[in-house]
Amino acid sequence: MSENLIQRTVSAYTYPLLIKNLLQAPAVNDPQQEIVYRDQARFTYGEFRQRVCQLANALTEIGVKSGDTVAVMDWDSHRYLECFYAIPMLGAVLHTVNIRLSPEQILYTIDHAEDDFILVNEEFLPLLEQIKGRIDTVKEYILLQDGQQQPETTLTFAGEYESLLAESSDSYDFPDFDESTRATTFYTTGTTGMPKGVYFSHRQLVLHTLSGMAALGTVVNHGRFHQQDVYMPITPMFHVHAWGVPYIATSLGIKQVYPGKYTPDMLLKLIDKEKVTFSHCVPTILHLLMSHPLFNELDLSNWKILIGGAALPKAMCKAAMQKGIDIFSGYGMSETCPVLTLAHVTDADLSDDEDLDIRCKTGRPIPLVDIKIVDEKMENVPVDGQSVGEIVVRAPWLSQGYLKDQRNSENLWRGGYLHTGDVACRDKHNYIKITDRIKDVIKIGGEWISSLGVEDLLSAYPGIGEVAVISLPDNKWGEKPLALIVTKPDYEINEKDLVQYIRSFIAKGMISKQIILLKFKFVEAIDKTSIGKVNKRLLREKYMQQSC
Amino acid sequence: MSENLIQRTVSAYTYPLLIKNLLQAPAVNDPQQEIVYRDQARFTYGEFRQRVCQLANALTEIGVKSGDTVAVMDWDSHRYLECFYAIPMLGAVLHTVNIRLSPEQILYTIDHAEDDFILVNEEFLPLLEQIKGRIDTVKEYILLQDGQQQPETTLTFAGEYESLLAESSDSYDFPDFDESTRATTFYTTGTTGMPKGVYFSHRQLVLHTLSGMAALGTVVNHGRFHQQDVYMPITPMFHVHAWGVPYIATSLGIKQVYPGKYTPDMLLKLIDKEKVTFSHCVPTILHLLMSHPLFNELDLSNWKILIGGAALPKAMCKAAMQKGIDIFSGYGMSETCPVLTLAHVTDADLSDDEDLDIRCKTGRPIPLVDIKIVDEKMENVPVDGQSVGEIVVRAPWLSQGYLKDQRNSENLWRGGYLHTGDVACRDKHNYIKITDRIKDVIKIGGEWISSLGVEDLLSAYPGIGEVAVISLPDNKWGEKPLALIVTKPDYEINEKDLVQYIRSFIAKGMISKQIILLKFKFVEAIDKTSIGKVNKRLLREKYMQQSC
Repeated sequence: MSENLIQRTVSAYTYPLLIKNLLQAPAVNDPQQEIVYRDQARFTYGEFRQRVCQLANALTEIGVKSGDTVAVMDWDSHRYLECFYAIPMLGAVLHTVNIRLSPEQILYTIDHAEDDFILVNEEFLPLLEQIKGRIDTVKEYILLQDGQQQPETTLTFAGEYESLLAESSDSYDFPDFDESTRATTFYTTGTTGMPKGVYFSHRQLVLHTLSGMAALGTVVNHGRFHQQDVYMPITPMFHVHAWGVPYIATSLGIKQVYPGKYTPDMLLKLIDKEKVTFSHCVPTILHLLMSHPLFNELDLSNWKILIGGAALPKAMCKAAMQKGIDIFSGYGMSETCPVLTLAHVTDADLSDDEDLDIRCKTGRPIPLVDIKIVDEKMENVPVDGQSVGEIVVRAPWLSQGYLKDQRNSENLWRGGYLHTGDVACRDKHNYIKITDRIKDVIKIGGEWISSLGVEDLLSAYPGIGEVAVISLPDNKWGEKPLALIVTKPDYEINEKDLVQYIRSFIAKGMISKQIILLKFKFVEAIDKTSIGKVNKRLLREKYMQQSC
Repeated sequence: MSENLIQRTVSAYTYPLLIKNLLQAPAVNDPQQEIVYRDQARFTYGEFRQRVCQLANALTEIGVKSGDTVAVMDWDSHRYLECFYAIPMLGAVLHTVNIRLSPEQILYTIDHAEDDFILVNEEFLPLLEQIKGRIDTVKEYILLQDGQQQPETTLTFAGEYESLLAESSDSYDFPDFDESTRATTFYTTGTTGMPKGVYFSHRQLVLHTLSGMAALGTVVNHGRFHQQDVYMPITPMFHVHAWGVPYIATSLGIKQVYPGKYTPDMLLKLIDKEKVTFSHCVPTILHLLMSHPLFNELDLSNWKILIGGAALPKAMCKAAMQKGIDIFSGYGMSETCPVLTLAHVTDADLSDDEDLDIRCKTGRPIPLVDIKIVDEKMENVPVDGQSVGEIVVRAPWLSQGYLKDQRNSENLWRGGYLHTGDVACRDKHNYIKITDRIKDVIKIGGEWISSLGVEDLLSAYPGIGEVAVISLPDNKWGEKPLALIVTKPDYEINEKDLVQYIRSFIAKGMISKQIILLKFKFVEAIDKTSIGKVNKRLLREKYMQQSC
């Protein structure tokens, strides 16, 4: 390919995509617009910009320099938002520590990320005390606290956040540098092994922000995010930058509300008092909010909520809509910055059921996202709303690997596409619907069959209390399915009837013919993980041995 | 600055910002969505994608390769849109020829851009005939025509567009290449000298598109551009890619209407028949539409129109609004891709006058645009809605110079900011308002004074028919102002009264004290340019000599 790059005049400014440039318009249009922290503090955008400069000066004074890693351990706060900007804008890396991990795992991530500095909320001091003798890389700690009281701790601090800011100049000339400079790092937790680090450059975060603005802004009505919304995250800022929405909200220059540690009471009061119109959370958090007495009392008809992290159950979606909430789904993962798809309803003429159906789908790609749904040979599966394959993806904001982990990085990116491990189908309107994790799919004679679909059918059978369908290796078919069934007390299940039941769905074309191979095993209990999910990995190991 | 670039796994895909990626979501969400050409042809997005591939194959067959320059001479058409994609996606440069230039100027641009191929509408064959003996670089011509009839011409063609497409495969595997590869070139016409070439890379066009989507999408209401709009350009596609909006519209996957050669009748009929909701044009074109009998008959209350290229007169804005049209201004220039600012009304509580005032302003920067308003020392002028300075700008999509023109390139970019030559003020809500071209500003004792402001006052004085205020060199003050006045028939103007009139505005603080230096000269006529604008350059030369 012959090169025909644009010529740059000597004096011409080559504009890098840096996080500092997200503070250009429209973020500056209304300097009086507010950033609110719980019921405790309010700052204007003008003050926010000054505080970002003060933080940069304070960190520089303490010794932070370009290339250093600065970790933050805090609940969602105005401070965290200031760190989202000041730390990367210095050329340093922001490590958003997952404070839900065990102390040993946190120690592992601090070590692995090679944190040079840690900004820590006083609430996490007991946690740090447990591991502090073994932290080798950290030079200084900075104390974050809401009150004034000196905390009891054996740690020493370079200073307290607010005092440091107060002593620092409110102007800072942030330098230009390569847009591929690492801006952030954080750790994902799988079901096996230690946490894996992902990382994002300035360019990636800027492009994720722009594409997110374009996707959320240009929908006609449902799930729109615009310049007059009021934003409050309910996905932690340590988790994939609160899905990147704080960068979008700040770029829009809108009012933002940071709720600190999540409690249903505080969250609902803030939505009401600060007139929050746009949030995002996982289904379990929404469930907590919906179960709180305040939920029924409040008018939430101006609230839009983006659900991700797990499939949005239809019942939950319907209940939220009945309350007047504009609810919809999105999809992404830690490795993808995260947003890949959004499930916006763009057709006003749908029936209520169709509308509900779309809101609970995985969604359609946002601009620049190239999603393929492929079989094991990386060939596209048919776009028919039925055929399933693995979601593989390209976008300008995907983690280019796992930090210092060559083997897992190559596996993530095999074939030049990021492998999500999610199995999905796609319909003719480009809506994607995840049906399984790839490890839970049963592959019979080259065909991929959803274990969840079979489980749904079996759950409806009289007397079946609990069920898990797993796949076991098979010489002839590759894999064959096994249903583990816990019978309800006082029931007895006739296996022949059950086979007949399953065959009736095969006959109707509702499930694959290959399900004829399904075997049943009646068990006392089904193994779960520590958070209550069916542990299919363990079940496969257990029953594979028994069947050998 | 220590380098801490993100590490790329060997297999990881590094995503370049290429025009082909604008054909990802949401452009693909509805393959049945239409692209319409006048009252003559309709294509679906599915067909559009196939035709882009067919065009790429046809061009490759004819000999177009990466790095070549392919010129297009056409009115706004589906063909032009296909060229917007296929030509750059091959790694070639699209030269959008300004067919309004004189044959000699067109020859100059073909030569200067080193065009290798020209796609030419049969209407422009007589023009090409005039210069064809002197075109040195072009290897092949391709004929564009709406009908089937063989045109009378001495030129020979590699083929006719539709026939070539029909013979070509509808799939093409477009390669990846450096995102800074030049994608487009076109020529600006100043008042002096030959046209100057500007140029834009793939990266620049993608970022302009994303930022434009974000800016136009996230406004609450006025001047929104969303996924259910119907788009028709009324700024030619040869002029700064029709302000880049075809790339935005295609990315949104919306219905598009290309009107061919502009005639008020056809434009208004298309708006009506195809239910066009979003367009853009210069004030003179809108004036033509508003003067057409059809204009009053049609319901245009769903039409949004972005005005640029010149200030939107308040009277025109008001008349359009009375017709129910959502009208607003934008600002940019050929050198800036072009969009820099948009004048969206974001406050619903404004009075009608305030609302009107904002729609006619130059606007607020779109995301990533860094605009400064500076004095001659490149220092920011106060943000008070009054102090004026030159608009200088940085954005990721500014032409990095003029093609093969070192001297003008350096002048454009002196001090690391692109100099627009426009003089403006900015208010506390970040709205910019252009008051002058820099060459029409009067600089007295270091202060910049708008000649237009003084002209406005003088125009209102009884008996003054026409007025132009220019500046002449002055040893003491740097410059001093001179008002050239054409008196209306049967009027006689007393100069002392006129001085008193001007002084009353100085006393009220409405114009600068320095205007006390204003001299008057009563003349028979004021010199104009060929397009009817006051020729201040000529006036300055003329009256400078007289005053010497």
